Order: sequence, then structure tokens, then C-alpha cells
Amino acid sequence: MMKARVYVTIKQSVLDPQGVAVQGAMHSMGFKEVESVRIGKYMEIELDSSDRFEAEARVKAMCEKLLANTVVEDYRFELED
Amino acid sequence: MMKARVYVTIKQSVLDPQGVAVQGAMHSMGFKEVESVRIGKYMEIELDSSDRFEAEARVKAMCEKLLANTVVEDYRFELED
Repeated sequence: MMKARVYVTIKQSVLDPQGVAVQGAMHSMGFKEVESVRIGKYMEIELDSSDRFEAEARVKAMCEKLLANTVVEDYRFELED
Repeated sequence: MMKARVYVTIKQSVLDPQGVAVQGAMHSMGFKEVESVRIGKYMEIELDSSDRFEAEARVKAMCEKLLANTVVEDYRFELED
């Protein structure tokens, strides 16, 4: 069994309206030191797999095909046994 | 300037319907090795702050008050200069 931790973030050049909204809310609440907020996704995936090399290729495929929209998002992941 | 990386995850005891849906989609796409998927949020927050100790307390307050619903979600964060 392996666990993949996947992080999907909006590319730096793309506007993140959800982040802008949260930043506004923070300022309203008195957290004036907040300069920017970017919001992404964090996923924990359990895999019934024993070959680390193959698991890496499979998780990459999952990210490309389903988990991230690579036009506007970046992704990275870590695998642990 | 400091950067906080905040991870908000649904508590283990709480059902994650979005994760279940993604798991189903993965199986349909042939990723049969996927045993479970849990989906959370990942946030990058830039802070105009120089006191690490104070920044830590402030980010904790942001999580408690706005970023996480602590009834059903857990959070953790890292600070970097």
C-alpha cells in the first residue's frame, strides 16, 4: 500500500478569485498583514501498489487526466510507502 | 515577508463525498489500484510579518476563524521566511 499526496495549485499567471475573496475576508476580520492568498487542492490517495516506479507513473497520469487542469493549474506529488 | 502553507483536511471520521466521487471516476478510467481518495484544501498565504512567533499565532487564528471548519476539518500549517 502506498500513499500519494497531491498538491494542485493555480498557475501564478492565472487569477485566483477564491483567494482574492479570502484575502478580502481576512482584511475585514483584522488580519491586515495578509498580502496574498492562493487556494489550491490537497489530495491523499491510497494505492494498492508495491512498485514505486510504476506508482509514480500512474499518479502522474491521474493528475494529467483527472486531478489537475494543466491549462491553468500546476501539480506536484509525493509518494510514501 | 513570510509565507504560510496551510493544509485543511476533512477529519478521518467524516465522510468525504467529493473524494468518493473522484475515486469512482478513477476506477472508471482504469485506475483500479486507487483504494481511497480524500480531498482537502491547500493554501499559500503571504504575510507582511517579521516576527515568526507572532505570525504563527496569527495564522492559527486565521485557521480557527476562517480557513477551517474545525467541527469537521483538521488543519496544519508551515511557516517559511
